Order: sequence, then C-alpha cells, then structure tokens
Amino acid sequence: MSASLDDLPLRDDLRGQIPYGAPQASLPVTLNVNENTHPVPEEVADDILDAIAQALRDINRYPDREFTGLREGFADYLGHGLEPEQIWAANGSNEVLHHLLQAFAGPGRTAFGFSPTYSMYPLLTGATGATYVSGTRGEDFTLSAADAAEQVERAQPDVVFLCSPNNPTGTPLSLDVVEAVYEASQGIVIVDEAYQEFAPHDEPSALTLLHGRERLVVSRTMSKAFAFAGARVGYLAADPAVIDALRLVRLPYHLSALTQAAATAALRHAPTMLGMVDDIVAQRDRISATLSALGYSPYESWSNFVLFGGVDDPATTWQGLYDRGILVRDVGLPHTLRVSAGSEEESTAFLEALASL
Amino acid sequence: MSASLDDLPLRDDLRGQIPYGAPQASLPVTLNVNENTHPVPEEVADDILDAIAQALRDINRYPDREFTGLREGFADYLGHGLEPEQIWAANGSNEVLHHLLQAFAGPGRTAFGFSPTYSMYPLLTGATGATYVSGTRGEDFTLSAADAAEQVERAQPDVVFLCSPNNPTGTPLSLDVVEAVYEASQGIVIVDEAYQEFAPHDEPSALTLLHGRERLVVSRTMSKAFAFAGARVGYLAADPAVIDALRLVRLPYHLSALTQAAATAALRHAPTMLGMVDDIVAQRDRISATLSALGYSPYESWSNFVLFGGVDDPATTWQGLYDRGILVRDVGLPHTLRVSAGSEEESTAFLEALASL
Repeated sequence: MSASLDDLPLRDDLRGQIPYGAPQASLPVTLNVNENTHPVPEEVADDILDAIAQALRDINRYPDREFTGLREGFADYLGHGLEPEQIWAANGSNEVLHHLLQAFAGPGRTAFGFSPTYSMYPLLTGATGATYVSGTRGEDFTLSAADAAEQVERAQPDVVFLCSPNNPTGTPLSLDVVEAVYEASQGIVIVDEAYQEFAPHDEPSALTLLHGRERLVVSRTMSKAFAFAGARVGYLAADPAVIDALRLVRLPYHLSALTQAAATAALRHAPTMLGMVDDIVAQRDRISATLSALGYSPYESWSNFVLFGGVDDPATTWQGLYDRGILVRDVGLPHTLRVSAGSEEESTAFLEALASL
Repeated sequence: MSASLDDLPLRDDLRGQIPYGAPQASLPVTLNVNENTHPVPEEVADDILDAIAQALRDINRYPDREFTGLREGFADYLGHGLEPEQIWAANGSNEVLHHLLQAFAGPGRTAFGFSPTYSMYPLLTGATGATYVSGTRGEDFTLSAADAAEQVERAQPDVVFLCSPNNPTGTPLSLDVVEAVYEASQGIVIVDEAYQEFAPHDEPSALTLLHGRERLVVSRTMSKAFAFAGARVGYLAADPAVIDALRLVRLPYHLSALTQAAATAALRHAPTMLGMVDDIVAQRDRISATLSALGYSPYESWSNFVLFGGVDDPATTWQGLYDRGILVRDVGLPHTLRVSAGSEEESTAFLEALASL
C-alpha cells in the first residue's frame, strides 16, 4: 500500500540522503551526545512547573512573538552589558544557526568551517541552498590566528563558523583567532560557544569582542551546561541589527509559550543549574588523565566531552563498550572515539569497561 | 553604537523587507488572529501539567526524535485508519509547511495557491528559495473543480496549497476540488485543514482521500480548535514515504520534550477540548446573521472567523473598533474586514461596537 521515497517528487539534492542523528539506544550509561547527565534539581523543576502552569492559563493565545521576558533573562545571564535587543533565541541552537544561514547564506552564498567541526554545519548550510566549504586545522586540531585568517581571506565566505571550544574535538579557540578571522572576512562570523561554560572560568568569552563588531555573533545553548537538552533552547548575542535580520526569516511565533516560560524560569536559577558544571569538568579531567594512563591519547578539552586517539579499531572498541552497557560516539575520525563526561559513577563505569577490553 | 541592517551582508532578496506579523496590541477584545478565545479547561490543564512534570525529570536528555507517543496520539485523534507512521508534527503548522517546502520545493521549483489565501504561503515558499505562483478564485472566493484543475494543469507547480476552509475568507472547499487538483498535478498537494474542526460535522475531511494518493498531504493545527496556539503544535497526515522525506529536512530534535508531553496530554482530552467548538460555531453564525442585518455582506464561513464585505472604508472602521477596545483584522481585501468568533460576550461586544459606528 505505501509508496517509496522514489515515488515522490523529492528535490534531487535530497535523493539518496539519510536522516541525521546519532543512534538512540537505551543503555544504562549514555555518553554519546554530550548531554548533561545530571537532572535538573528538584527545586528548579518546581519553579519551572509553576511558570508553565501560569503560561497554560492563556495557552489558547499566540505567544509573545518577541519573547521579551526570555530575552531579558538571557541578557542578564550573559552579562557584559548586553541588552535584550541584542539577544535572539530559537528551538535549539540548530534553529538559531538555521536562522542565521537563512538571513546571510542561502543560494549562491557560502559558509565556511574548520574541519573537523560540528557535523551539523554542512547540513544546516545545505538546507538553505548555500555551499559549505571546509577549511583545515593544524596538529591536534588547533587553529592559529594567522592560519585561520589566511584560509578565510582566500575563501571569502559569507558566513564563518568558529566552534569554541570545538566539537567533536574539545579544542580551545583563543580570542585572537576570532579577531583575526573577523578582520579577514566581510561576512558574518559566528562563534559557537555551545560548550563555553565548561572552559576555565577565567578564560574570556567572545562576548567580550561584540562591541563595535556588527558582523560578529556569539551563539550559546541551554542544552549542555543548563541540562536542558529536552527543552530545545538555543540563543545568541549580537548587534541589534543582526536581530532585525533574523526577524525577517524566523517563522512567526517560533518560540512556544511553554518554552519561553520554562527557559525564563530556569535562567532565574542559573547558579544552581551551573553548579553541576564543576563536577562535570572534574570528571572530564579525570577521564582524560585515566585515558592517558591506559595508553590512549586524549585531546585537550574545554568542553564536557573527551575525544581520545590511540584506538586501534574504533568500531570494535565501540561495540565492546556497547556490550557492557555504555554508549559512546564514533565521530568518524580515524583511531578515535568521543565520550561525554557523565556523573562520577558513569565516568567510572566507562573507564572500567574500557580498561577491561 | 548600533549598526543598521544596511551595514550587514544580508541576502539581497531580504533587503527592504519587514517582518511578518499581525500587530500585537493589548485590547480587551482581541479577535484579529483567529485564536480560540476559550482557555484550556482546568482539568485538562492539570493533566498537561502532570505530563510536563514527568517530562522535566529527564529534560537534561535530548527528546525522542521520533515523537512516538505524540504521533500515536494524532493517529488516534484523526481516525480514518491512520497509523503513526503517517503522522508528522512540528512547532506550529507553519513549520510543518516549511518542512514540506524544504523537501518538495526550494530553489528552481514552484508552489501554487489560489488567491486570496493564507498569507504565509508565499512567505514560506520564498524562504526555501522557491517561486510562488498565485491562481485565482471565482465569485465569492469559491473554487470549482474544473477551474482549479485547469489552473494547476497550466502552472504544473511542484507544490499546491488548498486551504480548506480557506483563510482569510472562510470559504468551504469540496473534496471534488482536491481530487481534480490531485489528478491535474504531478506535485505534492497540501490540503491545509487548520480550521477543519469548525466545518459542519457531517462534511468529510480530505483525510478520506489519502489512501492510494501518495502525493496528498492533509495538514492540521492544535492552535484553533484545541485552543493551543501558545504551545505551537501543527501536524499532518500523509503516506509514510512523505514522512520519510520530512525526516531528511527537519532539524534534529525539532520537537521539545515539553511540547511532546503537553500535546500528547491535550489529545487525551480531545472531546473536552473540542467541546468549545460548537459554541464558537454558534457565535460565528450569529456574527454572520447580525452582520447581514446590519447591512454588511458576510462571506460563507466554515471556520472560526467571518470575512465581511460592504465596509466602505476598512481602515476607518478598524480604527473605530480599536478605539472601542476591539481588535479585528484588515486582511487587505478591498471593503472587507475579518473578525474571529469569540465567546458570546466578545462577539456581542464586537457586534454592538460595529453597530454603534
């Protein structure tokens, strides 16, 4: 009875593609998609629920298209003198990036990232009809200001992605790279700080560079440090003119009243929510140290995960861990695997299972 | 300090555009965006809140990418032997339509609608880089099968929108038009049934035509009959192959765990939620009858709003109503205004204010 995809007038560029997505398997220890494995604390959940109960009272009405309260919450949280007019938010940072690409990339334009980096960049770029161009990284996936600027100068992309710290490698990115790339580019420069809260606390964010740089965008997410992956909330800070541009491409009422209420309430508890970050960072560093002791080669990470080399056959090791109830990620880089830093128990389970292989 | 949009490398096709959106004004009687003015009943809100409390327990994890429970809920609600594999959902029906256009329209392709119709169709089409082509309607905004099929045959669009009943006119669309357009087309035919629940109960939905028509899609929303505009939940039913196509273009985890929980719980109370529909239909018919008595020319409506002609100067009448605390919509059709059917009190307030002008 059912037709197949080939029976449908699908766009030619989509033929033969398969949907994006990490395998969703129900294992005791799930460390494959860089989630925060700590649930939201109960007192925060209670406050979120109160806010949602309030929002349900007029859920029959369209939500505030300008998500005013939520933008104030983000501006307060980010600090650096940011105003609500400089904030944008959407259903996950993927949608934030999608909006940016719709406004500044699209057919006939190019977006650029330094490989290996977040695997959604090329997919998001292609979805707007733009062309994705991959640059390269140096030894250990680092990126120097001179090298990055030269590559961008040569490619002249309309949008540049700088993932800081980088996913899937965890690599830090210093602000002089951002400055140099901005100078070398005439396009929009997006610093994707999805994992920024896991960097050393005294390291400055690219938010400190926003003033006077109207083409610079710093994107963030509540999925990681805020343990809010299920709520789908990404956001960014930029010049108010960038926000005006995003209003042209967003779908009307793209952020539900429930999302706005939940995120605004969670932000009020930022110190509590971020209390888990130090624990996760401690586990990350312990994982790296233990991996080294086991003879693997972990890459420096400022995120909530560790990419480690020295894996002879990643598929076999992945399967061995899977069989022991532990899910990690093979990101396709030769002789590596990636593991998210979980709770102390989860991290121990991973390290013991790996040692037993 | 702030830059202007002209300082940014915005796409050329976006230059000079202004954001879509009805004016959001806080007036006592808001009848401009076809919301359901009845709040969600308290016992339903309580159940939704319980479901959300449950979802908050693992909100630190990414949501079910396949929103399995919600798809089962929609399949049950729609009936007609539909299976969960035939259901898709997104953040509002605008996003549902956006996904369809990303998969089946995009650069070099065309989408087609019969003017005047839902004003988002051209905007959504343009956002994917496709070209929008407007067809025409007959007297009183009706559409005959022969005329519609001939126009589609001539245009050979990749996607056809059939809004049933039509927004902003309320006009019914008979199923023979859907059948004729489907036969005349080689593209995807979307029957947008956003307001279907307000049609006479014995009138069949285009859902009855899905079997054996793999290019036919019937889209719906929870914003109207379900009084859920703030929660942003649109959905559709189609051949499972269409769903496979949409998986290629959706952003991963596009539906939050909160949205999934809230919508699934609301669907369990479908009879209660839809209990308001008959009241609204009664007010709609009362509005139409009273408008006729006042000398205006309401168009036949199977939706939750009434478009009425015979307005000498819509801007003046709109302002007169605004000054009396009542917000209606000037949809840009000469000598008409559009009003949503509210509660009995709201409808009375509108009719009395109009009579007093």
